[in-house]
Formats: sequence, C-alpha cells, structure tokens
Amino acid sequence: MDLQKELIAMGVLAKQAARGLAKCSTTEKNQALLSMAAALEAGQERILAANARDMMQGETKGLSAALLDRLRLTPERIRGMADGLRQVAALPDPVGECLGGMRRPNGLDIQKIRVPFGVVAMIYEARPNVTVDAAGLCLKTGNAVILRGGSEAIESNKVLSDILICAAGAAGLPTGSIGLVETTDREAVNILLKMNRYIDVIIPRGGAGLIQTVVENSTVPVIETGIGICHTYVDESADLTMAADIAFNAKVSRPGVCNSMETLLVHRSVAGRLLPSLLERFYQAGVELRGCPATVACHTVVKPATEEDWATEYLDFILSIKVVDSLTEALEHIDRFSTKHSEAIVTQDYANARRFQQEVDAAAVYVNASTRFTDGFEFGFGAEIGISTQKLHARGPMGLVELTSIKYLVSGNGQIRQ
Amino acid sequence: MDLQKELIAMGVLAKQAARGLAKCSTTEKNQALLSMAAALEAGQERILAANARDMMQGETKGLSAALLDRLRLTPERIRGMADGLRQVAALPDPVGECLGGMRRPNGLDIQKIRVPFGVVAMIYEARPNVTVDAAGLCLKTGNAVILRGGSEAIESNKVLSDILICAAGAAGLPTGSIGLVETTDREAVNILLKMNRYIDVIIPRGGAGLIQTVVENSTVPVIETGIGICHTYVDESADLTMAADIAFNAKVSRPGVCNSMETLLVHRSVAGRLLPSLLERFYQAGVELRGCPATVACHTVVKPATEEDWATEYLDFILSIKVVDSLTEALEHIDRFSTKHSEAIVTQDYANARRFQQEVDAAAVYVNASTRFTDGFEFGFGAEIGISTQKLHARGPMGLVELTSIKYLVSGNGQIRQ
Repeated sequence: MDLQKELIAMGVLAKQAARGLAKCSTTEKNQALLSMAAALEAGQERILAANARDMMQGETKGLSAALLDRLRLTPERIRGMADGLRQVAALPDPVGECLGGMRRPNGLDIQKIRVPFGVVAMIYEARPNVTVDAAGLCLKTGNAVILRGGSEAIESNKVLSDILICAAGAAGLPTGSIGLVETTDREAVNILLKMNRYIDVIIPRGGAGLIQTVVENSTVPVIETGIGICHTYVDESADLTMAADIAFNAKVSRPGVCNSMETLLVHRSVAGRLLPSLLERFYQAGVELRGCPATVACHTVVKPATEEDWATEYLDFILSIKVVDSLTEALEHIDRFSTKHSEAIVTQDYANARRFQQEVDAAAVYVNASTRFTDGFEFGFGAEIGISTQKLHARGPMGLVELTSIKYLVSGNGQIRQ
Repeated sequence: MDLQKELIAMGVLAKQAARGLAKCSTTEKNQALLSMAAALEAGQERILAANARDMMQGETKGLSAALLDRLRLTPERIRGMADGLRQVAALPDPVGECLGGMRRPNGLDIQKIRVPFGVVAMIYEARPNVTVDAAGLCLKTGNAVILRGGSEAIESNKVLSDILICAAGAAGLPTGSIGLVETTDREAVNILLKMNRYIDVIIPRGGAGLIQTVVENSTVPVIETGIGICHTYVDESADLTMAADIAFNAKVSRPGVCNSMETLLVHRSVAGRLLPSLLERFYQAGVELRGCPATVACHTVVKPATEEDWATEYLDFILSIKVVDSLTEALEHIDRFSTKHSEAIVTQDYANARRFQQEVDAAAVYVNASTRFTDGFEFGFGAEIGISTQKLHARGPMGLVELTSIKYLVSGNGQIRQ
C-alpha cells in the first residue's frame, strides 16, 4: 500500500513535469541533454563504483556471463552513453511539427501538430544504458519518464538516474521529468501497469517473459517490443553466394539480438548446392544446427528439428533450417511462426521479390539483405527507443517521432455547428 | 468452452480473410462496397422486420426513448447506411500509400508503406448502423472485421451482417472478411479481449462502462474512444455575443454526443455581462443548470454544483458552470477534469488564444468555435470510425488512415551488417 502511494506520488510529479516539459523550447531541452552528458562523464567514478556493487551481487547470484556483460559499465561505455545523449541533442525536435491541415468550407482552420505523449514509463532489464537512452529520448520529445530497470542493475541505475536528475534540474527542466522506481519489489511493475491516470504509454524492453507480463496486465496503452523469430528464405532463383553471405550474417553477426535470423528456409531445388557448404560454415562458426529431414541429409552435424524449434527465438548460436518446395510453402511457414519483426528473401526473380514484400506481414520485409539492419540507427533515425512488433502507433524501429502523439488545433471566428 | 472455440474459429477465418483482403485491389474493394450498399436497399423489408423484433423486445424490456430511437431503423436510415458505404467507396484507398523512404549509405532502399492492420474487432452498443459503418470502413482499408454489437440490436445486426457478408462474398471478397458474434452472452467480449493471436486491434464504441471494460481487460491493443467532458472557457477579452452563441451551440445542438460541452467556464470580469442572459437562454431551451456560487448569484434557476458535477459527462440537457479568476484557473480546471477530447476558448486576445492551444492537453483544442466540430466528417475525413481519446496511434476523429498500420520494405543487393 505504501508502495502504491509512493508510485502514485511519482506519477503525480511526472504528470506535472510533463506539463512543463511540453512548454520547454528545443534549446532548453538540448542544453539539458548536453549537461546530462557532461555530468555522466564527470560522475564516472561514482558510476563505476555502483556498477561494481551490481557486478559483485550478480556474480554471487551466479548470473550468466552474457548477462554480466550486459550489466558491466566501463569508462568507454560511460563515454558511449554520454555521446548518445549528445547525438540525441543534435537530432531535430519533432515536437511542434505541423503534419498538415486544411481550411474547412465553414472557414475553420485545422492544423495537426505533433505533441509529446506526456508521461512514458520504460520497464526494462539488466542493461543500465537503457536508463540513460530512455531518459534522453523521452526528454528530447518533451515527455516525462518513469524508469523501472532490472534488480540486477539497481545500484548502477540509482547513481545514473541521480546524476541525470541533478543535471536536468540544474539545466532548468521541471522536477519530476525523470523518475526511477528505486524498489526492486516486483509488485511495483503491477502497480505501474494500472496507473492510467498518470502514465500515457508503457514501453517494455527485455525478454519474452517481461514483454508478456506487460502486455497481459497493462491497462495503460503499451508499445510491444522486440521478440524476433526472423526468417531468411533462399529462393530457387537466388544468387547462392549472396544467399550464403546474407544467411551467415543474419545468424552469426550478433545472435543475441531480436533482428537476428532464427530459421533458414531453402527452396528444394537449390538446397543441394547451397546447404552442404553453408552448413559447414555455420558449424565452423560454432552454430548448433537443427533441420528438417532434407537438411539432416545434407550434413552429418545437423540434428533433427522438432515442431518447437520453428517457434523458438533462440537468441543464441542455434539455427533451425527447413527445405521447402515453393515460395508459397515458405510464406505459409513464415505466416505461422513469424513474430512479424523482420523477414528476408534472397532472390533474383522480380515477381517473387514483389510477392514476398507484399504478402509477408512483418515490420520490415527485406529483399537481398540481412535482417540485422532492422535498427533505428541503421534506418537513419539517429536514435532508437525499441523495435515495435505491434501494429498500433509504431511498427519496426522507433526513433523520436514514435515517442510523440498529435493534437488538432482548430481556429475559427465564431463557427457553430448546424 | 464451446463459445471460446466458436470465437477462435471466427478469429482463424478472419485472419485468413485478412491475408486475402490485403491483396485485394482498390477496385475490387470498392465494387464490394457498392454491392453491399445495393444489397442493403434490396433487403429493406428483411431489415425492417428484424428491427421490428428488436424494437418490440426493447419496448418490453422498457428501454428509454433515447435508446429506442438509436435502435430504430427506417427506410430513410437504411438508405443513409447504403449511402455511407457509397461514400466510403468514393474515398481514396490509404493502403499502399508510400509515406516516405530513403537510400541508406550502404545502398539499401527503405520505403515506409501503409498496410491494413489485419483483423479489427469492433465492440459497440445499440446502434445497428455501426454494423454497416464499421464493416465498410474496415473492408475499404483491407481489414477483416469482427463485429460485436449490443444485445438490443441482435436481430437487426444478424440480418444486416448476413446481407453484407453475402454481398461481399458475391463480389469476390474472401470468406471471413466480415464476422458477427451472434451470441449475446457477455462472456464473448471477455474472450475477444484476449484473442491476441487473431485480432490486431480492438475499437470499443459506446458508453463509459463499455469503454472501461475493454480498456481494463483487453490484452489486444485498444483504441479508446469517445468519453468527452468538454469545456468552453469564455475569456475576459471575449466577444460576448460570439461566446454566448458558441456555448449555446456546444451544449444544446446535440447534448447526447461526446463532443458536446459539459462545463462552461467564465472569466469573472465578464460573468455579470454574459451569464444572466445566457443562463436564461439555456433555461428556456430546457437545460438544467448547476453552478458555482458566483453563477448561482446570476440567475435564480441555477442550482449549486457539487464536485462531482465537474467530473460528470452528462450527455444530456444539463450544464455545469464555473466562474474563474483567470485563464490560469481555467487551464487548471480543464487539466483536472477534462477527458482530453475537445476544449474551447472564446477570446480576442492573441496570447491567450495561443497559450490555450499550446497548454491544453486534448485531441482538439478550439479558439472561437464550438467543440461540436470534433467529428470525422466535419474535419473533412469523409468517414469516421470513432473519436480516439488516447494518445497512442490515433487521437481525435479517426478516418480511414487511422485504420491502417505501416511496414518497411527494404531492398538491397546483398547488404550484410558489419
């Protein structure tokens, strides 16, 4: 009950701050971002000390090496976070942009204007850099932000947010513009998910369990992010050298991220020419291979895939492979198992390329390129708050404009409705 | 359990239909809409007979006159629904529109394209015309639609949807493009709200209770619609004749809709000149008046308002009135009680007009016009599926484009990520 009161107090403060932030000029917001960047660099020792406490706790708790790596801060990573804030400061401010308008026959002028959401809550896991990224992107777009990071990073997040809050306040941004939920009590998330009066949008970032908890329990509007069972389909007509390079890149360049490939689909007529050497290349790179019977027949290292494999986001050096008889069969497989994140075809055939891009229902649909490009920076947005896998509001990489809403300004001279 | 199976079967069929609809050309969709319009007019006798059964049931159940009026169909209303479909057919098709794109430094071409959502579920109350409107707007935008109307209109809805389904099917649209939930069991709504695998977006249309049930229980993304506690603020500098006309229109022209005014705010310095005659005019029009002490002092017919009045959407011939000392006090009142639908200021002062439009957080913010204009047709959209009062995806009147999502088409020649 005290926790609920505490969070509501944070919500009240954030809502009040959001009113002030909506009125801040771009210059004021940018100045604050630059101050925050400088403060992070100046606070390096404090940050590293706090992070060392998290790391020690993490090691004691037996966190995996991958998780510990995500948690770890270094002088270089702190500089990276500060530079991230400077880059956000350099981006154009979407708030106030006029998206169009018209004069109606009765003389009313209507303008559609970009405005901040108000209060955004970010719920995330072990990476402390999300604390800084989210605060920077939300402030730039005039939103107050409530941050709820993972318990593994709580010491780091407390110091990071303290530094950001002080710098933002000293730069003149309203009190409450940034808030960190300091308790690691899981109940806090459940409370946040019902705070419709104080929070306009919730963005979860993390693993499937976190995303599902948020989607299933939130009454506040949610932008679902990040689960990616991504496929690459190698068409009958593909340039097989290109196909091998794209598939290899999509799996191996960074298997732990949502835009990496989980399943390779290969047209039967090219399987014999493509797979033996490509499977060997994956095997040499340390990728565990699980395939359909036709794939298993191509290389001794391939284990049989189960139905579950097609539905699994490995986020690891594991790949499932299926030989299909046609583009249609590939489309059906994708339609059944895709999480609608990123899907690719490798083909030289115009009609197949066009059909694939038109029929596949996903945020990003590629022809002859690696799915790994689905990313706010690679798309040229200059920032990324996450990758939306829902169809409402935003889809695919989300930059600054995806953190805004709109309003209609209607100006008249006494119009009344008949 | 059987109900769940039945609804999931409907979802499977709708999802399948959505894949087909996404591929339909604008010409095919328009032809289907025109066939549906003709079929409604040809089926007039069947529709009127079914509606008579609903009306009889409604009278037996003792529905209010207002509700019975919403439920009633006439030859003229049927013609109106058919004409609505013809108007939607005449509108431009948003699907396939390219919203922008770029060539990245690595040679990747990225295009942002408008696509259908997939499957839209509409949950609504007594008006049978929503059945036709929603089906028309969803099909035009390439979405399959699942309709769940109020039990009062079930007989009308069954016949209407049967006529629409037959006409759409005969015109070549996929089976399952339109589905009506035929049971009046309330459990059906709860099941729909959890059908994330089959439904992309849920749009509730109706009273506060329905909207709240959907927002609180849906795991499918929702577009919240329609609750409107709308204010008109008469500034110190207002043209008082204009102010009186705008306020009268905002309340009296149609009190039962969401864009009508519920609270009038008046600057103290003009209250004495504005209120006595305006209150008399409201009184003569049958409006019950509830005011702050200063308002009560202006006219004998005004009853004292309670705190609850400021937070009530009357949707009726009732108005609350408050005298305020400043624009700031008006903004604070609005911030506290507004449902962020439509808010208006009447003023001759440039700075006050600008401040009001910038600071009020609502879908539509008016200067010197009636809030009654917040409407898809009045905004020139040519259609309206509802009025969004949330900030995610759509805000204010929603036309065809608000029924679409986007996807990114990425075209390369072998690009891989470093």
